[in-house]
Amino acid sequence: MEKLFLYNWHVRNHWLKWCESLTEKQLRQERTGGVGSIFQTLFHVIDAEYSWLRCVRELADDAVSFEQIRTVGDLRELSEKYMEENHAFLRAWTGEAELEQVYVPWSGETFYKGEIIRHVIAHEIHHVGQLSIWSRDLGMAPPVSANLIGKGLYQ
Amino acid sequence: MEKLFLYNWHVRNHWLKWCESLTEKQLRQERTGGVGSIFQTLFHVIDAEYSWLRCVRELADDAVSFEQIRTVGDLRELSEKYMEENHAFLRAWTGEAELEQVYVPWSGETFYKGEIIRHVIAHEIHHVGQLSIWSRDLGMAPPVSANLIGKGLYQ
Repeated sequence: MEKLFLYNWHVRNHWLKWCESLTEKQLRQERTGGVGSIFQTLFHVIDAEYSWLRCVRELADDAVSFEQIRTVGDLRELSEKYMEENHAFLRAWTGEAELEQVYVPWSGETFYKGEIIRHVIAHEIHHVGQLSIWSRDLGMAPPVSANLIGKGLYQ
Repeated sequence: MEKLFLYNWHVRNHWLKWCESLTEKQLRQERTGGVGSIFQTLFHVIDAEYSWLRCVRELADDAVSFEQIRTVGDLRELSEKYMEENHAFLRAWTGEAELEQVYVPWSGETFYKGEIIRHVIAHEIHHVGQLSIWSRDLGMAPPVSANLIGKGLYQ
């Protein structure tokens, strides 16, 4: 599973860097589908990954609120901070706890840890697929290919 | 890894069913981003998954050509046929061969089997993210949520 997170983070870093080339309007404009703007969608994937993995770790959610993140720089900083914490957890994840269940306070349901981990992976890839269309709508090529192969994840 | 394929297939089946409610024009119209139309994008994910997994299985590619698939019914039939074959392979996949390398004729490169399997998973999720935007562009809600949780994959 770790490789799929490394893929997501590699791709995310390219999108975050690309955001620096956008105007505030391009970044904040409400778009068709997804969770709103490009900025908000990227915040959402970063925030969701952290919150869900905190859940798997059986820790209380302490994610920051959207209002605290004002600039692309804030977003990158948040992403890096969360990635570091998530990576430490994922490196130690052996899969033995896949079928342990955890209660998810914001949904009021119980899910398997392995299910949540896969949910988080798919969640980011799905939203990045949406970003790829929005970048084309802005007349720009996506800043990074969606290919998992060729990203040096297995070197 | 099998669960992520089951997720993709569950989601794909909903999109294929949704295609039956579209007009030929909606289905075939060239869209912004992705690989062309809704029809062609769905063909592409079905075809790519099969071809890449044949590669992992060290079998020659024998995927059908796009011209042979004329209707949504053809596409569903193809998807089901390939899923069955792919599922038999994935059920038996223990991960022991993750770091075996295979030569990929259409790219002229060599990749790890585990890398290809993850590539295929991410590939479909990415394209489905694009479909979700295109459905909104058509004024329709996506026919299936992108959530991996709550799809009964762990029951």
